Amino acid sequence: MHRTRVRVVEDALDANSTIARANREEFDRAGVAVVNVMSAPGAGKTTLLERVLGRGGEGLPGVRTGVLEGDVQGSLDADRLAHLHVPVVQLNTGNGFGGECHLDANMVRSALPALALDELDLLIVENVGNLVCPAEFRIGEDARIMISSVAEGDDKPLKYPLMFRACELVVLNKLDLLEHVDFDVDRFLGHLEAVHPGVEHLLVSARTGEGVEEVREWLAALPPRVRAAA
Amino acid sequence: MHRTRVRVVEDALDANSTIARANREEFDRAGVAVVNVMSAPGAGKTTLLERVLGRGGEGLPGVRTGVLEGDVQGSLDADRLAHLHVPVVQLNTGNGFGGECHLDANMVRSALPALALDELDLLIVENVGNLVCPAEFRIGEDARIMISSVAEGDDKPLKYPLMFRACELVVLNKLDLLEHVDFDVDRFLGHLEAVHPGVEHLLVSARTGEGVEEVREWLAALPPRVRAAA
Repeated sequence: MHRTRVRVVEDALDANSTIARANREEFDRAGVAVVNVMSAPGAGKTTLLERVLGRGGEGLPGVRTGVLEGDVQGSLDADRLAHLHVPVVQLNTGNGFGGECHLDANMVRSALPALALDELDLLIVENVGNLVCPAEFRIGEDARIMISSVAEGDDKPLKYPLMFRACELVVLNKLDLLEHVDFDVDRFLGHLEAVHPGVEHLLVSARTGEGVEEVREWLAALPPRVRAAA
Repeated sequence: MHRTRVRVVEDALDANSTIARANREEFDRAGVAVVNVMSAPGAGKTTLLERVLGRGGEGLPGVRTGVLEGDVQGSLDADRLAHLHVPVVQLNTGNGFGGECHLDANMVRSALPALALDELDLLIVENVGNLVCPAEFRIGEDARIMISSVAEGDDKPLKYPLMFRACELVVLNKLDLLEHVDFDVDRFLGHLEAVHPGVEHLLVSARTGEGVEEVREWLAALPPRVRAAA
């Protein structure tokens, strides 16, 4: 029983890697940088995207940006972003994907026809809220952002180390709640350094706007990196 | 590809149901009620257990209680409960279980030899922090508690409906943060009623102690229910 379970997971991950590479080729062909945004449920992914893309309703200056919203079901997050002047595509893992707790390369591939990749410089993919499985499935992205909220506690890097390792940027969000919760920023950053030495991090409050400009700059710098690499 | 994936999930769920029934028989034989506690990462499961079991260090009066801690890796939560006068067993899904994002019946079964079931009236199982997969895997429990934190937002019942349906009690935790977050309790309860009509709920702050007594009473009432049914 146990040995069978592990083999199934490995096969699924192998297939995923193959499709992720195919996605990557399409993204390269269109010249679009792709960032995979991951977090626990309710850590503030959508609110941060609203703040990052919403100022003046124009998105990132000079960077044609699109959003792919991953959810088990519903379109609440896509609806929240609908007032922004960026294309938003909703992908539900509950429709034909067995209610998966993460996005995988094949799901993202199924959404590509709905995305005008040639008209984008940057595609932001908001993953399903989950601190385990999204880290295991590459989707063909250039970079991964992991968002952690101070309301979740400062022990999270130790409890979900794969997620905190599988990213190029950690955003510590909801800083405005810091005085109301038992959370030690230095302890969190120490745990983060222990599981992912040297990873970039930003301290943010999507609610008050603190640190949002740094997230904008980090995202806006992605497309030229891709072009430089191409 | 897609059809294969679905079949694998169904097979896994069938095997899980079989093992969950076997677990149930062992729990019945020992006369122990089992409750499965589920939530997103950082919603306060461990803190609530500390408050529920910690008053006077005696656990629930007259109810011999044990705890099974499920985590991907590490023993942080079990360590936090070690000062309580209740037996605590740590179960890691990362050790030989492929880093699973949930507990299943087979994992719980592997922990049974470490639990002196005959010396317990109530076993509290703290699941892995995740709002998707834990809801799909019964472990042989009598009841399931779902904990949601106000910091996660009031839209969660609509976004993760299976989780909010697959429980007998919903605890809305971190009420002490209510004035600092954008969360409408009535809207949350409306969404909850839409996805799981009539489900019991309690408003709690594990941090301040508000509502903790009601959770204690709810848990303490479980063992007699089981005995009555036996």
